Amino acid sequence: LGIGTNREAGSDPGPAICTFLTDFGLASPYVAAVKGVLLSVCPEARLVDLSHDVPPQDIAYASEFLAACVPYYPLGCLHVVVVDPGVGTERAILYAEIGGQRLLAPDNGVLSRLADEHGPVTVVRTLTNPRHWRPTISATFHGRDIFAPVAGHLLNGLNPADLGPLATDWLRRPRPEVTPQDDGIRCVVAFVDHFGNLITSLPANMIPETAQLEIDGQQVECHPVRTYGEAAPGELVRLISSDGRLELAVVQGNAAERLGATVGSVVHLRHQTPD
Amino acid sequence: LGIGTNREAGSDPGPAICTFLTDFGLASPYVAAVKGVLLSVCPEARLVDLSHDVPPQDIAYASEFLAACVPYYPLGCLHVVVVDPGVGTERAILYAEIGGQRLLAPDNGVLSRLADEHGPVTVVRTLTNPRHWRPTISATFHGRDIFAPVAGHLLNGLNPADLGPLATDWLRRPRPEVTPQDDGIRCVVAFVDHFGNLITSLPANMIPETAQLEIDGQQVECHPVRTYGEAAPGELVRLISSDGRLELAVVQGNAAERLGATVGSVVHLRHQTPD
Amino acid sequence: LGIGTNREAGSDPGPAICTFLTDFGLASPYVAAVKGVLLSVCPEARLVDLSHDVPPQDIAYASEFLAACVPYYPLGCLHVVVVDPGVGTERAILYAEIGGQRLLAPDNGVLSRLADEHGPVTVVRTLTNPRHWRPTISATFHGRDIFAPVAGHLLNGLNPADLGPLATDWLRRPRPEVTPQDDGIRCVVAFVDHFGNLITSLPANMIPETAQLEIDGQQVECHPVRTYGEAAPGELVRLISSDGRLELAVVQGNAAERLGATVGSVVHLRHQTPD
Repeated sequence: LGIGTNREAGSDPGPAICTFLTDFGLASPYVAAVKGVLLSVCPEARLVDLSHDVPPQDIAYASEFLAACVPYYPLGCLHVVVVDPGVGTERAILYAEIGGQRLLAPDNGVLSRLADEHGPVTVVRTLTNPRHWRPTISATFHGRDIFAPVAGHLLNGLNPADLGPLATDWLRRPRPEVTPQDDGIRCVVAFVDHFGNLITSLPANMIPETAQLEIDGQQVECHPVRTYGEAAPGELVRLISSDGRLELAVVQGNAAERLGATVGSVVHLRHQTPD
Repeated sequence: LGIGTNREAGSDPGPAICTFLTDFGLASPYVAAVKGVLLSVCPEARLVDLSHDVPPQDIAYASEFLAACVPYYPLGCLHVVVVDPGVGTERAILYAEIGGQRLLAPDNGVLSRLADEHGPVTVVRTLTNPRHWRPTISATFHGRDIFAPVAGHLLNGLNPADLGPLATDWLRRPRPEVTPQDDGIRCVVAFVDHFGNLITSLPANMIPETAQLEIDGQQVECHPVRTYGEAAPGELVRLISSDGRLELAVVQGNAAERLGATVGSVVHLRHQTPD
Repeated sequence: LGIGTNREAGSDPGPAICTFLTDFGLASPYVAAVKGVLLSVCPEARLVDLSHDVPPQDIAYASEFLAACVPYYPLGCLHVVVVDPGVGTERAILYAEIGGQRLLAPDNGVLSRLADEHGPVTVVRTLTNPRHWRPTISATFHGRDIFAPVAGHLLNGLNPADLGPLATDWLRRPRPEVTPQDDGIRCVVAFVDHFGNLITSLPANMIPETAQLEIDGQQVECHPVRTYGEAAPGELVRLISSDGRLELAVVQGNAAERLGATVGSVVHLRHQTPD
């Protein structure tokens, strides 16, 4: 899809760009504390919020989110991902290099979609060396006490090998379903965006030219268009999403609400037979 | 109103400040992708979010928003505006210089209020040269594929003349209504802020000293005050807004909810006649 | 609690870090205007949002928020706090130095919790010298017209003594209640976070090992755990919060909703007597 075309191999990411993806919300002080710790370690860090509005503990959502934006960043950027229902338990924390991007994330599968779509995965390490952590670790806030100071030290040039050993195994989530069938193809809603658009798991090159759609068993009429403005406000349309998958949308409206669909809803495209 | 007083003509805006105004929301990955592309082109860019919470496709809201904040930025800052229901259609994308600020925006009228209030408009160009766009253009995400790389190149010093020809015409929205009448003056609610305060279209110097107010035909009692703290919590007051217009507010409350008013609601100020 | 351990005394906070805490929301243009004014005075400023989602006019919330994150910032950072129901009235604006951090805030008690927990308070000045304000001051928007330009000048190196005289007195809010009782200890919910977790006023070292809990007079069962992942989803637990206080939480759920509790709710821990 041309991702990375604007980047030159070996280009300098500039002074210490570090992004964040969390489910902390912006109304609580957690994001602000994380940034404070990071800036205390690396005052030159340049912070970019990917989002802090991941639904609480929604690993699948965060995994789709990373795949949709991380590949566009300059090579070598550091991305800190704290969607971490297992905080304080035995789950590991990973340092990974995927498609030239660097990430810190809990070992809960959140990196799966990025690795699936925008690999290769070249390095995965497990954070075991507490030397670069804060001296006291809250059992409920590793974002502040482990992720943030480690990120700061990485931005300062710390060798990732100092963080801990290479991981022999790490959690991968299964890809969202795409199943060819006798009478067509089955996929699922993989992501619902802010506008209520439904982004499915079906890659653009697998979309049949004509097909009858069912969502969770309900037949729906939706015209294929190239972009929203080609249909009237309120009309249900299908098109190719900005990351190259089948998308269902209501023009200037909310398809998720209209169809009662959500992540995991089954989308069935049946071949249309001429009568 | 003293805007710009703190800026010196010819002052350096510092290293590459670029602001964003979109309706993408922060829960979706679109803002994050736009920033990634921009930073890949110009790693030194310094990003400022004006807002990503413009109501979906609400051009009038975005237009008021720009007029209320863009003039306060250092001269020469670049402002990227992506509230764009016509994305992927024949609508043009504009580069404009208004009151010393630089903007990229769809040609849908979103720059009208800034041009009305804080001009002059000195340059308007139409983006036709794809040389600085991403090589593949999604029909639904020009923010990522056109606006972001073009912004990055402008921050890197690209001559705006390279973007495309001077525009001979561009869309202007009518100013929100202000109509003198035999028995007073009519205006409309032009903006509803986060607190539910109603900012009208009536400039401070046209506010009658005493007047009876009607909102959408309903008579309302509201005392003139200088600031919220001059009345009791819960009281409906009228005052001069921070951008110099008639404002209706409920002290520590929500005037929009109290009055059932919204953008476009008609505010009628009738001269009070002594009995 | 180890705050500040990653900071070295006298470390350079880097180029001009300035944070913001407001109740302006991000949908309105007020935050954007404040940043524009500040950048016009100090184009090199590096802006960090603590939050703009403080509930409107909620001074207690903002006070807890500051205490939970400001101490983690590099020494000498400037924090601009605009939660200011008294804007435009006789209330003063303060410049304060607390625990090595610098702050601008209205004199309404919002600095109390930071001063209580992370002092000492070494300097408090009242802003009286309008020389560094904008030339026209809106009665309703001191954030833009006073706080922002003063912050910019402080970042540029202005001596705080130029802002106004040392304050002889300033508003302090009482600490959230912690009351030992014959049969146990009483505290209150001091903060409700984004996840609905209830952070109480009771310091960790005062939590009895075993106790029966009542919230607003209702007895509740909740197991002590070290972190959320130690109990099943949906279970009510108590643990030590990330800032070292008694916290009540529902694993992957919302304790505030479950218990109908909010800031100020009384939490009573009764000694358990063996039967």
